[in-house]
This record gives sequence, structure tokens and C-alpha cells, in this order.
Amino acid sequence: MNISALFNLSYGMYIVSAKDGLRDVGCIANSIIQVSSDPATLAISLNKNNYTHSCIQRSNWFAVSVLTENISRNVIAVFGFSSGRSRDKFSDIDHITSPSGFAIPNDGVCAYIEGRVISQADCATHTIFIAEILNAENLSDEHPMTYEYYHKVIKGKTSKNAPTYIGAT
Amino acid sequence: MNISALFNLSYGMYIVSAKDGLRDVGCIANSIIQVSSDPATLAISLNKNNYTHSCIQRSNWFAVSVLTENISRNVIAVFGFSSGRSRDKFSDIDHITSPSGFAIPNDGVCAYIEGRVISQADCATHTIFIAEILNAENLSDEHPMTYEYYHKVIKGKTSKNAPTYIGAT
Repeated sequence: MNISALFNLSYGMYIVSAKDGLRDVGCIANSIIQVSSDPATLAISLNKNNYTHSCIQRSNWFAVSVLTENISRNVIAVFGFSSGRSRDKFSDIDHITSPSGFAIPNDGVCAYIEGRVISQADCATHTIFIAEILNAENLSDEHPMTYEYYHKVIKGKTSKNAPTYIGAT
Repeated sequence: MNISALFNLSYGMYIVSAKDGLRDVGCIANSIIQVSSDPATLAISLNKNNYTHSCIQRSNWFAVSVLTENISRNVIAVFGFSSGRSRDKFSDIDHITSPSGFAIPNDGVCAYIEGRVISQADCATHTIFIAEILNAENLSDEHPMTYEYYHKVIKGKTSKNAPTYIGAT
């Protein structure tokens, strides 16, 4: 088996936002797919170690911000490589609030999607949250960032909590 | 809600292969993600109308071929816009056989991944199959085709069975 074959799967780059009751939390994710169109549903895979994961499991609500090629490296660093357990990530990032009350970065985002979890699948280190899409809006015409662009152009690293992480990168 | 916001999600282009007992079957899919790295697992969303869907539900085995920008339009037409119920798709397509016995198109594919279904989530019109990855190999250095490339460069259409289908395209 050559696990590098999995690098040929294509992904986008996203911030998944949730609430811990007191404040906004969020983390970088790439494993997000539309599951069906009628009803409109979405699935996301999150590592159980992520603080955002535990907040979604408690609240069953989240929002996905679609990052563009203009997203600042600082936003990726804050949301991909620090934990909401010890840091109020959104306090450092200019953001707007979606209709359901989720924080969405103000720059480098072309769309957001709000979802309510309707089921979840336990997958060892990760959980797949399946969500009914309650709201979705476009914010800009900027080009969505792909995971490939993040690696090849920005020379970005992979968080150890990402599904695609294999060893030190 | 502006459902077009969902067009900003990024995907690849894949053929999911299975067996119906007698012959090889397969269909185009784009909603495929790696779920976790240890154990290596994969999730795919397939429409229940697809013949490949029913074959995977019976057999619990499948393979994913990662399509490249060199895949022929004819292969996409055969696997995306005809049904394995009435047509032996792979009989018309030059293909190799993976170690577990699945048909993989011989051209326009850069990698394949074989999986065994370990759980599934019912999502109305679709099923998410979650699979343990049993084998994965690279086949070429060709660039994986993204769903965006398929739409913008090839001017490809969306099958009514795709999660991303919304009305006539």
C-alpha cells in the first residue's frame, strides 16, 4: 500500500465555527462534502481532539466558512495550529456574525454555510457530522482555496489533527 | 438562502468501481474524503439510484479511481450518464484490474484506493459509505481533475444523481 496515493484526493480549505456557550470557536478543516441536494445536507470530518469537535457535539450547530486564495496566513495559523481551549481565536480576527450567530472571518472568505447536525458517525479518531443545511450565502467572488494550493503555493503544513496527516510534515 | 454558495466547495473527480457478482460496475462520484489517517478511512456519498450503490451495499467492497485532467470525455459520459443496470460500462473501456479485483480505467487515472465498508450513514437520497482503506497505489504523475476543472474547462454537466445537482444543468 502506498498511502501517498491519498494525496491525489482534492479538497477545499475551510474554517468550521461553533460556540462553546460563552464564545466563538473554530478550526481549519478540509474534509467537507455536500451529501445530497434535496434535502441539502453536508458532511464534515473533524478530529475528536479539536475543541470545535466537542462544541459541535454539545450544540449540534456549526457554520463553514469557505476560505479563498486571499486568506491571510495568520488566520490559517490561528485556526489550524492553536487550540480554542487555551485561546479565544476569533478575538484576534476581524469577523462578521452569520444569521444564526456564528463568527465568519471578514476577509479571505467567499461563502458560508450554516448547518444543524442530524446524525453523526463515529470513525475512531474522527467524527463525521452530517448536517441539514439551514442557510448558505456568497460573500465575495474570490477564488476558493484548494488544499493543493495551500500546500504548493503557500507551502502550508498539515495539522496533526487533520484526516490527511501522516507523520511529521 | 443562496444554494449557489455550495458551488464554492472543492471536489475531485472519481470513478467508484464495484462488482455485481457477474461483472464490473462503476459510476462517477465527486463527494469523497479521507476521514482519518490512523486507521486510514475514507467516506463516499453515493445516490441510492446508482446501480453501483446497490452493489456496494451488497458486497461492502469498492475501489476509487482518481481521474486526471487527461481522462477522456467518453469515459466521463459512460460512467456519469449511463446506468450499469442496462450497460456493461467497463466492457467498452480499456482497464486494468486492482489486487482485490476491481476494474480501474487504464488511461486518465493517477491513483486508486480500495476499501471495505465498515459503516454507512443513511442520508435520504444518498448513503455515506465509510470504508477502511485496504490498498492504495499511484499509477501516474498526471494532475488530478478537480470538479471545478470539469465544469470550467471541459464544460461538463452534473448528473442528476450527484449530491451537487440542483435542477437542470
